[in-house]
Amino acid sequence: MQHLKHCQGLAQVFLIRSQSSRLSKSSIPSLSVWDGHLSSRWRSTGSHGRQKYFNDRLPKFRFALAGLLAGTGAVLAYKLQQGKWAATSAKLPVTQTSTLPVYTLEEVTKHCSLDNGVWVTYKGDVYDITEFVAMHPGGDKILLAAGGALEPYWALYAVHQQDHVLEILSEYKIGVLNPESYKKQESANPLDPYSAEPTRHPALQINSLKPFNAEPPASLLSDNYITPSVVFFKRNHLPVPRLDPETYRLEIEGLPGGVVSLSLSELKSRFPKHTITATLQCAGNRRSEMNKVKQVKGLNWGIAAIGNATWSGARLRDVLLYYGFGPETAAKAKHVQFEGLDRDVTGTAYGASIPLNKAVSEEGDVLLAYEMNGEDVPPDHGYPVRVLVPGVVGARSVKWLGKIVVSNEESKSHWQQNDYKGFSPGTDWDTVDFKSAPAIQELPIQSAITHPAEGTSVDLSDKEVTVKGYAWSGGGREVVRVDVSIDGGKTWHVARLCTSDKGQHPAPPPPPGRAWSWKLWEIDIPIPHKAQELEIVCKAVDSSYNTQPDTVAPIWNLRGVLSNAWHRVKVKVSE
Amino acid sequence: MQHLKHCQGLAQVFLIRSQSSRLSKSSIPSLSVWDGHLSSRWRSTGSHGRQKYFNDRLPKFRFALAGLLAGTGAVLAYKLQQGKWAATSAKLPVTQTSTLPVYTLEEVTKHCSLDNGVWVTYKGDVYDITEFVAMHPGGDKILLAAGGALEPYWALYAVHQQDHVLEILSEYKIGVLNPESYKKQESANPLDPYSAEPTRHPALQINSLKPFNAEPPASLLSDNYITPSVVFFKRNHLPVPRLDPETYRLEIEGLPGGVVSLSLSELKSRFPKHTITATLQCAGNRRSEMNKVKQVKGLNWGIAAIGNATWSGARLRDVLLYYGFGPETAAKAKHVQFEGLDRDVTGTAYGASIPLNKAVSEEGDVLLAYEMNGEDVPPDHGYPVRVLVPGVVGARSVKWLGKIVVSNEESKSHWQQNDYKGFSPGTDWDTVDFKSAPAIQELPIQSAITHPAEGTSVDLSDKEVTVKGYAWSGGGREVVRVDVSIDGGKTWHVARLCTSDKGQHPAPPPPPGRAWSWKLWEIDIPIPHKAQELEIVCKAVDSSYNTQPDTVAPIWNLRGVLSNAWHRVKVKVSE
Repeated sequence: MQHLKHCQGLAQVFLIRSQSSRLSKSSIPSLSVWDGHLSSRWRSTGSHGRQKYFNDRLPKFRFALAGLLAGTGAVLAYKLQQGKWAATSAKLPVTQTSTLPVYTLEEVTKHCSLDNGVWVTYKGDVYDITEFVAMHPGGDKILLAAGGALEPYWALYAVHQQDHVLEILSEYKIGVLNPESYKKQESANPLDPYSAEPTRHPALQINSLKPFNAEPPASLLSDNYITPSVVFFKRNHLPVPRLDPETYRLEIEGLPGGVVSLSLSELKSRFPKHTITATLQCAGNRRSEMNKVKQVKGLNWGIAAIGNATWSGARLRDVLLYYGFGPETAAKAKHVQFEGLDRDVTGTAYGASIPLNKAVSEEGDVLLAYEMNGEDVPPDHGYPVRVLVPGVVGARSVKWLGKIVVSNEESKSHWQQNDYKGFSPGTDWDTVDFKSAPAIQELPIQSAITHPAEGTSVDLSDKEVTVKGYAWSGGGREVVRVDVSIDGGKTWHVARLCTSDKGQHPAPPPPPGRAWSWKLWEIDIPIPHKAQELEIVCKAVDSSYNTQPDTVAPIWNLRGVLSNAWHRVKVKVSE
Repeated sequence: MQHLKHCQGLAQVFLIRSQSSRLSKSSIPSLSVWDGHLSSRWRSTGSHGRQKYFNDRLPKFRFALAGLLAGTGAVLAYKLQQGKWAATSAKLPVTQTSTLPVYTLEEVTKHCSLDNGVWVTYKGDVYDITEFVAMHPGGDKILLAAGGALEPYWALYAVHQQDHVLEILSEYKIGVLNPESYKKQESANPLDPYSAEPTRHPALQINSLKPFNAEPPASLLSDNYITPSVVFFKRNHLPVPRLDPETYRLEIEGLPGGVVSLSLSELKSRFPKHTITATLQCAGNRRSEMNKVKQVKGLNWGIAAIGNATWSGARLRDVLLYYGFGPETAAKAKHVQFEGLDRDVTGTAYGASIPLNKAVSEEGDVLLAYEMNGEDVPPDHGYPVRVLVPGVVGARSVKWLGKIVVSNEESKSHWQQNDYKGFSPGTDWDTVDFKSAPAIQELPIQSAITHPAEGTSVDLSDKEVTVKGYAWSGGGREVVRVDVSIDGGKTWHVARLCTSDKGQHPAPPPPPGRAWSWKLWEIDIPIPHKAQELEIVCKAVDSSYNTQPDTVAPIWNLRGVLSNAWHRVKVKVSE
């Protein structure tokens, strides 16, 4: 079930094409190039020749299958082990439909395995994609559609519905469905799983529409110590489930008393309501800076996949203790798993886990949150209940929470096992072993400049440039200092740290190890008389005195996560 | 009492002089320069003129008084706010003794304050150091000797006994003691407080003899996963106290039942013996790399002020709970303070504190250790009992433990308040505010190369270069990866991590957040055919995915602590 998310690998075909002009020669060739080349071979060799071609070539290609499951941001990039094929954007010839046979749905259905061949249908046409299975960036997840329609799957990951993907598909066309079959199939197709998505704020900059992934303009971030929910970054892996608070149930497994089923009103009435202010950050925040070094797989987030909010709900600790968690369970459990109620067409839910100690310790402050910023958690953020794991990568704060499992094992979810992990810059899709790296939990120290914006101008007559930004660290480590430079890092100034909006009381200092909130910061720095350009840089330091690395390239990793090098913004000085 | 350690500021006069050829023009002028200049003024203006000169000049000087208390590594450096005085090494004229008056001890004793003048004696001579008090790098701590002999104080900080310091002193000579007074004083002088220091291993590289500070050759470090006690770095702030295990008592204050006094045998018999393996690192480890950027104050440690040992003893948690620690105390306490039995001449003990939660949580693993590597804790490491605070800077693992205080306050000790804190590279001794930075507790991610050594050669015919080192992170964050480069950081390889010596069983994986031990690492990297020089670089990543900064300059700080940039070693390639 896990590999379902592979399908999302196709999401970034368009991204690759649109960015290709920016890619260096050493970048991964995009599918468009590769496919164009292959198609010209196939045309002359026919189906058998194609198969042979693959059999010969397969060991020489290394398909970027692993790790492509990571949501809509996954980039469909086939790494070529050998050969340097020139970049072309050759248009694929359209196969003549009239000469192709007509099939019934029954005939298609028989071709539902690699042994019998893998046929699929799309809009009344029939495709034999047997050869493509091994190349599918989403792995053999594609077999879910074997012997049937692609539509339900592509509806889930709308990124498939792009010209380029259709071009690939057209290569495999072998016939058409007869009209009755097509009609029957059409009527069975499910509704668009994204038809019930909530309305979103127009200011959001959309990275992916289905599933919805968007961040606010960076300049908005430092306007509010508490990020308004409507512009808080949205990072959905699947369609937003619309859940009825009356029928909502949260299941808890792995405790001595057996499975617990808890209603929303029970959750609210049975346990004290706790409120914490905590920052959530996507593992991919600032991925766009890594993409500039070398193409990575994932949504091209700017610096605003981070936000700070108040969260209210029951403490996970209280709930687990109430239902029997004690030394007996602690002795055999190491993790607490979470499962969302957002599911793909196979029923696979989004899932994640956190270490047991974080879940049950008083200092962990993990909530089963039903309020965000004083109101019901909005649909995009997990209504009616989400986990809120402060100090930890956003991916573990599972939304639309359906199940909690106290276990000796980490979540088996793709997002825990084969995504959201960090690797060396020397590790590529040929050599990566996801088992070799721990799942990201606590995030490293982070900061970024929200004002001024890259490429803008500052006026020399102002004498000073005001620089603003945010800083945060994982694991409850408080940000203790932000250094700012306007000469690219040669000299440094210490910024003022803010824990409230102007005119508001500053937040009280957090207990050690429980600093869950970011700090906004601000500084006015004199503009040197002869400066024509300023390279503004920031770096933060946390209570463990960890600091950010100077540059992006040495922390580059194939999934583009953990991008926390010094943030740099260049502005012109105008007179 | 706190400023006693200021006296140690004189320790590095010699260091500055010997290093002056390496200092750039922007470096802090050393006392030798400054003093030579002043003395030539004084000679022509007489005592009154000297006083006036100071009164006029004082606001323009900023004396580097703060933060000089930090042990023998403190550098005597007077920062000049204005003026650029040429570097000279003018020899000071020797004052003619024969023309000076003879004083009795009683006369000297009357001059024991700034109001009455500050006189001191040294080897039978009398000095009026009233004017020098304001310039003493150790602050008014010098007044402890007012009206009496310098010898007892200089005995404590042997660094005063250098030609250069004597030259400064000679400027203030006003007479001689009469023979009876000198004889009387001599007989009253205490013995050398360092006369009972333990024997040390000859391999140790000594940074300061009194107090004793030394590190092993770096190449020894990676030979043993458990560092042998004899070559484990020694970092003493004061003379080693020789304590009798029969009469030793540990006092505990701040618990409901009042003051507890615990004997060594009670500590051993009353509480379960726990053993942990933990790395200790000095805050100043790798300070020498910061010194190369710009002079800092502190012992010039290489990369070996770090070691890994097994420690056995009672859990601090168990002891505190046994003597009544509970919610009542927890509600009003935030820190646990430790006081050593190593004391200076005023009776001020070395001291430090840690956050309460670290002290009392089961996961904190704080020990009252009476064994190191399976034997009694050696005298240099705190015999008979030291605190062992794993994951935290060595300075908090107080040796020769005499007292524990559960308190709402941090330790008032100099080493907690005005030392062992990190600052921005833009902060200098004019602008530093020690209250603005938190006391270092958890240390940031660290790694260094122990083999090959800087400046050595590797043989091209070997085809590969073997690189070895250590990596560790504070806060119990496990080292999850070490990246090694031999081209200065352009390309990276992932090293093998070792948690044992060869042929030994690897240590079992630690629970999350309790990885107290370093990892040794090793890698063989092919030598490029045409390479003439290799720039070997390492950087580590911990379980929170924090990583080391690329370069030293942006983390430079005036005390030279927290030096954890990529470690770089250049070696030649010979054919």
